[in-house]
Amino acid sequence: MEIDDEILTEFYDNRYAVQGMLIYRKASLIVVRNMQKILEENLEKAGHEPVLFPVLIPEDILKKESEHIKGFETEVFWITEAGKNKLDKKLAMRPTSETPIYTMFSLWIRSHKDLPMKVHQSCAVYRYETKQTKPLIRGREFLWNEGHSAFKNSEDAENNVAEIRKIYCNLFDGLCIPYRIHRRPEWDKFPGASYTLAYDTILDGKILQIATIHNLSEKFSKAFDITYEDEKGNHKFVRLTCYGPSFGRLLASVLNIHKDDAGLKFPTNFAPTQIVIVPILTKGNNEEVLNYCRKIKEKSDKFRVVLDESDKTPGDKFYYWEKRGAMLRIEAGPRDIKNNAVVIVRRDTGKKEIIKSDEINPKNIMEIFKDIDRNLMETAVKKFNDCLFNANSIDEVKNLAGRGIINAGLCEDKECRDVIEAYASVLGMEDAEKKCIVCGKKGKVARIGKTY
Amino acid sequence: MEIDDEILTEFYDNRYAVQGMLIYRKASLIVVRNMQKILEENLEKAGHEPVLFPVLIPEDILKKESEHIKGFETEVFWITEAGKNKLDKKLAMRPTSETPIYTMFSLWIRSHKDLPMKVHQSCAVYRYETKQTKPLIRGREFLWNEGHSAFKNSEDAENNVAEIRKIYCNLFDGLCIPYRIHRRPEWDKFPGASYTLAYDTILDGKILQIATIHNLSEKFSKAFDITYEDEKGNHKFVRLTCYGPSFGRLLASVLNIHKDDAGLKFPTNFAPTQIVIVPILTKGNNEEVLNYCRKIKEKSDKFRVVLDESDKTPGDKFYYWEKRGAMLRIEAGPRDIKNNAVVIVRRDTGKKEIIKSDEINPKNIMEIFKDIDRNLMETAVKKFNDCLFNANSIDEVKNLAGRGIINAGLCEDKECRDVIEAYASVLGMEDAEKKCIVCGKKGKVARIGKTY
Repeated sequence: MEIDDEILTEFYDNRYAVQGMLIYRKASLIVVRNMQKILEENLEKAGHEPVLFPVLIPEDILKKESEHIKGFETEVFWITEAGKNKLDKKLAMRPTSETPIYTMFSLWIRSHKDLPMKVHQSCAVYRYETKQTKPLIRGREFLWNEGHSAFKNSEDAENNVAEIRKIYCNLFDGLCIPYRIHRRPEWDKFPGASYTLAYDTILDGKILQIATIHNLSEKFSKAFDITYEDEKGNHKFVRLTCYGPSFGRLLASVLNIHKDDAGLKFPTNFAPTQIVIVPILTKGNNEEVLNYCRKIKEKSDKFRVVLDESDKTPGDKFYYWEKRGAMLRIEAGPRDIKNNAVVIVRRDTGKKEIIKSDEINPKNIMEIFKDIDRNLMETAVKKFNDCLFNANSIDEVKNLAGRGIINAGLCEDKECRDVIEAYASVLGMEDAEKKCIVCGKKGKVARIGKTY
Repeated sequence: MEIDDEILTEFYDNRYAVQGMLIYRKASLIVVRNMQKILEENLEKAGHEPVLFPVLIPEDILKKESEHIKGFETEVFWITEAGKNKLDKKLAMRPTSETPIYTMFSLWIRSHKDLPMKVHQSCAVYRYETKQTKPLIRGREFLWNEGHSAFKNSEDAENNVAEIRKIYCNLFDGLCIPYRIHRRPEWDKFPGASYTLAYDTILDGKILQIATIHNLSEKFSKAFDITYEDEKGNHKFVRLTCYGPSFGRLLASVLNIHKDDAGLKFPTNFAPTQIVIVPILTKGNNEEVLNYCRKIKEKSDKFRVVLDESDKTPGDKFYYWEKRGAMLRIEAGPRDIKNNAVVIVRRDTGKKEIIKSDEINPKNIMEIFKDIDRNLMETAVKKFNDCLFNANSIDEVKNLAGRGIINAGLCEDKECRDVIEAYASVLGMEDAEKKCIVCGKKGKVARIGKTY
């Protein structure tokens, strides 16, 4: 089911005069801020220092690593004028921040004692997408967090990759977003990386890359001359890694994956409105009911809670807040007051329950929330697993393309790959052996899917 | 006393290849995040919705209000190319966001029921400063929060100005930054505003504007056609206000105002390191002392606390952390363990006290912090008041320029004003009458100072 336009405008407005750049509004920012907070806390616990680099990159710095600039040169916004002046040196809006950050790493890193150096920043990056833009999924300005780290040797770099894997998994688990991690094939890795791991989820049958982790090995440290003096006084190049999840795409995933026919749903920690209280008003005792509800609101004010005092009918209020993904509804009317009770209704199951009003406290609410999240994850995983397929022929790949992730045998031959990639992209190649469905020779298990 | 370069690089690095754009590092970001949090919470409590607008503004939108663009046209960074293409329409990097936001207000506001509409965003803005840049104070990329609000009538707009005044005062009080609010003279108000209130503080005798509040009246709503239908069905222009503090300048103020000969000091809520624990190690019982200190660290882990286990001497550690503004030092050695005690030393007064280790708890620490903040504010206000002067002649203005805020009589005549502004700027004109020190005719009290 499509999300109502009316609801979407509470998340973003896509009518701004620059194509591919949208306005984030309150509901989005609540979700994004919470993602950012969890991620930043975990990165900092793992030794990353927050930094914030300028958005502009001089042309010569952006072009220092040749493969890298080749990968981005068609996508860069260039500043050529300032005030009434032509600039001597063009400035790029960062499409990603390897080049500015590594320029500074070459100043900051001197000795083995400076390593590991781990930094991260939450910021927007700019890419002049030539494909059709799509709100939150493919934009020309997008919000993300990027981490950049330098190490003495490849073992430390590999350990960092493993650590970041865990941190990202933790974030996506909290968002109840199922995913597969694919090692991108050689022809699709990050420009300048020795390998790229990508987190792929499935939205409406198509593959959405929500995060990547790149091991850059020594390519950038050679281009930017980032060396350290080791314990014995030798100068060596550092090993670099970089990684980032896209907040916009994670938001798109949350909106898409959890919705049902009644509207949006959210993992409870991320719901713009976590709890809605609906007073059941009848003639004569409205003030008493409202006061009762206000007390309940006070007892749940550790959460994002709304008491809906509008003059809509209770039924209209239920409908309104279900669509917006308020994950717990508390109702109270005259009869409930008499019993010192409230009715609680879960957004995920619709299950109603009458409880004593003094059972409304943060601890009990968190219990319910935990169970809602567990249920959301279970539902999402089931939906995800229904989009995993095996294909034994080119025709099957063709039919399944756009319905999820397809396993099929594929060899290393470019011609065979091109046959497949006419229908869908190769997301990664597993180590397991399997006969190539194109040429019939020895191949590996390829993961295939139509990407956004 | 100047701040050591070594310490400053923990706050920012100014060696990046784009002039006037610096890299914020961990210590700065802790201060800025805390300012932002307090400000955003208060703005949202007062009914502001968070938004995040694109950084780019099409040329025609930026130029819609004629006075406004005249004020900014020499300062705008222009994007003219993207990838390999020349753009049809130039795009500006936002120097401020009135124009993009009011473009959307004209779509979002329809009826009196949509009013008031209050939004805010924390972001970076871009100005191609032609004056010499100065880290945190005058940069080409700077961090701020900007609020934008629309109202039915001028009374509501005035009430909003009063409300924002309080919110900003609260923030600056928390930072222990003294200030004066000046209504900027006509020739120095925001381009497009009917009036501008500015918060001025004093750093090293010079005036630093840390925030402004503008009443835009109907100028922008006419340029952007922002109307609403009132209760009787008439279409009317909204009244607009906008306002923003500069996070960079607030950080510069905190660093400058509170430092003493031993180094930096911070209002406790903003200190990058709030508490440092220094173990007093002697031969033989290091592990016991360290364990004792680790327990103390656990008891104070609601704060930003560091246990300095490095191999420096205690004296070197004291010196190191004083310079960095750790506001409370806790020392513990074998003798303290025997007495189940610790030594606490306040960074502001240097006062030492021996307390029982079970007195280390968040409540007691907060008590100490409150007193440190009170003391910091008192010291800052005294220093500020020492920079307030009266001048009765042009010579006195000349001599006092660059030493603080000067009161002097000044008339409305441009020639008289120019005589004064050869030495320092007129920050505001008070309503009180006073004889003009230039021509001797009837004038008003002018506040004068040399600005950054």
